Amino acid sequence: MLYFIGLGLGDAKDITVKGLEIIKQCSRVYLEAYTSILTVGKQALEEFYGRELILADRDMVEQEADEILKGADTVDVAFLVVGDPFGATTHSDLVLRALKAGIRYTVIHNASIMNAVGCCGLQLYNFGETVSIVFWTDSWKPESFYDKIKRNRDSGLHTLCLLDIKVKEQTMENLMRGRKIYEPPRYMSVNQASEQLLEIVQNRRERQEDLAITEDTICVGLARVGAEDQAIAVGTLHQLASCDLGGPLHSLVVTGHLHPLEVDMLRLFAIELDTLPNLKMTDSSTYVS
Amino acid sequence: MLYFIGLGLGDAKDITVKGLEIIKQCSRVYLEAYTSILTVGKQALEEFYGRELILADRDMVEQEADEILKGADTVDVAFLVVGDPFGATTHSDLVLRALKAGIRYTVIHNASIMNAVGCCGLQLYNFGETVSIVFWTDSWKPESFYDKIKRNRDSGLHTLCLLDIKVKEQTMENLMRGRKIYEPPRYMSVNQASEQLLEIVQNRRERQEDLAITEDTICVGLARVGAEDQAIAVGTLHQLASCDLGGPLHSLVVTGHLHPLEVDMLRLFAIELDTLPNLKMTDSSTYVS
Repeated sequence: MLYFIGLGLGDAKDITVKGLEIIKQCSRVYLEAYTSILTVGKQALEEFYGRELILADRDMVEQEADEILKGADTVDVAFLVVGDPFGATTHSDLVLRALKAGIRYTVIHNASIMNAVGCCGLQLYNFGETVSIVFWTDSWKPESFYDKIKRNRDSGLHTLCLLDIKVKEQTMENLMRGRKIYEPPRYMSVNQASEQLLEIVQNRRERQEDLAITEDTICVGLARVGAEDQAIAVGTLHQLASCDLGGPLHSLVVTGHLHPLEVDMLRLFAIELDTLPNLKMTDSSTYVS
Repeated sequence: MLYFIGLGLGDAKDITVKGLEIIKQCSRVYLEAYTSILTVGKQALEEFYGRELILADRDMVEQEADEILKGADTVDVAFLVVGDPFGATTHSDLVLRALKAGIRYTVIHNASIMNAVGCCGLQLYNFGETVSIVFWTDSWKPESFYDKIKRNRDSGLHTLCLLDIKVKEQTMENLMRGRKIYEPPRYMSVNQASEQLLEIVQNRRERQEDLAITEDTICVGLARVGAEDQAIAVGTLHQLASCDLGGPLHSLVVTGHLHPLEVDMLRLFAIELDTLPNLKMTDSSTYVS
C-alpha cells in the first residue's frame, strides 16, 4: 500500500493520530520537500516519528517514481506531504503510476492553507479561484493572476494568493553546464507579493483600465499559519507592502465584498485600527458595515 | 484558553497529535454537533480521547455561549469541530465573544471537505466559489446556487456543492407550540442534489436560457471523504441522480474545464467507463483530451 499522508501546517505534532500510526508501520517513509515547508525541519520530524525519512525532491518524484513505488504492492510505503496530499499541488501523477503498477493507495488528509486560511475570519465560501503569484524577473513579469483577482472581485469574492517557492533552483550557468549546484531556497513574502501587485495596479492605471484593486484595497497577509508564531496582518495593499511578517511560508488574501462579521474578525488583525472604518471612502467596491 | 480543535473527516483517529494532547489537558470539552458529522458517534470519540464530551448544539452555541466560555480565562476549554474549525461554517462569533470576555483562543486546524475534495483528482486551484444546496420544500425551491455554478462554469471552474444538513429541526406545529420535539436528522444525498439540479436545468430550458449545465455535464459524487468506506462516483449529472453512495455526508462537484490529468484521475471513479471519452460530443463546454 502507498500511503499519502498530510502533515498539516505547523510542526511535527500536526500529523493526525492515524497518520502517525501508519508512518510507524511503513517499510519506507518519503518526505516530499519541494512544494511547501513546515516550521520544523526533517530532523525534528524524524525524532518525533521515530523513523528515518527519505527526502523526495522534485527530480526524484518526477524521474525516479519507480524507486518510491518499489515493492509497495507487498510492503507499506508512506509519502509525506506538508499540508494536505491533494492541496495546492496534487500528486495525481504518483497515484496513477502506482495504480498502473498494481499498487493500491490510501490518503490521510490534513489541513492545508486552502482551508486553514479561514483563521483570518474570512468565510471560505466567499473565496473565488485561488491564484499563484510567481517571482518576477527583470524580463518576465506575468500579470495573469491580477486578472483572476479582478474576476473574483467583480463577483464580490476574496482571492487566496499562494506565493512562489523556489527550491533547488539552478542558475542558468549551472544548468547549462550540467552542474548540480543549487541556489538557496527562496520563499516569496507578503511584501514582495504586494509590491508586484502595486506595480500591476500602476501599469493598469497608466493604461487607463478600470481598476480591480487599488493601493487602498484591504488585504490580509498570513505567515506560518497553524504554527505557534503564526502572524496575520490586515491592512491596505499599500500597508502590506511594508509590513514584516517574518519567516516563511507567507500567503496573501485580496478581499472582496466583506460581510460585517468578517470585518469584525479582520479588525483583530488590523495593522492600524482605523484602516477598516476608513475604507468605505477610498475603495467603494468593498463593503463595510 | 479556548481551543478550537478540528477533528478532520473520518473517525476518532483523524484528530492531530497536538489536538489530542490538548483535549486530554482541558477542563471541559465541547463537541459541536450541528454543522457536520464524523462516521463515528460521540461515544466512540469519548472512548478514544478518554474524556467526557459535552454536546453543543446550535441553541447552546448561539444562546448559551457564556456557559461554554465560563472560566476559560483561567482554565483550558476545548471546542471540537468536525473538519476544520473555520471550514464550511465558521465560529467567528464564539471567537469574538471570547476575546470580549478577555479569553485568548488557539486554533488547531485539520482537513475539511473544502480541501479534502482534492482526493477525486480535481485540482483545488481550479475550483471557483463553493455553493450550498439546500433541501427544497413544496413551496420553497431556491435556484441561486445554480447561478453561482453557472458563473464558475463560465470561467471554466469546478464547483464544490455542500449539501444540506438538517439537525434538530422542528415541525412547524412543534415550533409554534413551543414543544422541543425534534425531527430525525436529514442529510442531503448526491442523488437528491442531482435531482434538484436536473429540475433547475429543465426549468431553465423551458425558459429558453443558455444552459450552464445539462444532464450530460460530468459531476463527481463524494461520500464519507476521509473515512475507510469513502465512495467517489464520477458520471453525468443524470447518472448521479440514480447512484447510491450510501450513508452521509455527501458532497457534489460540478466540473468545469477539465485538464487531461484531471480526466485521468476522474476515470478511476467512473460509473461507466465510456462516460468520459463520450463526453466531448454531448457537452461541449467540458474539455476532454
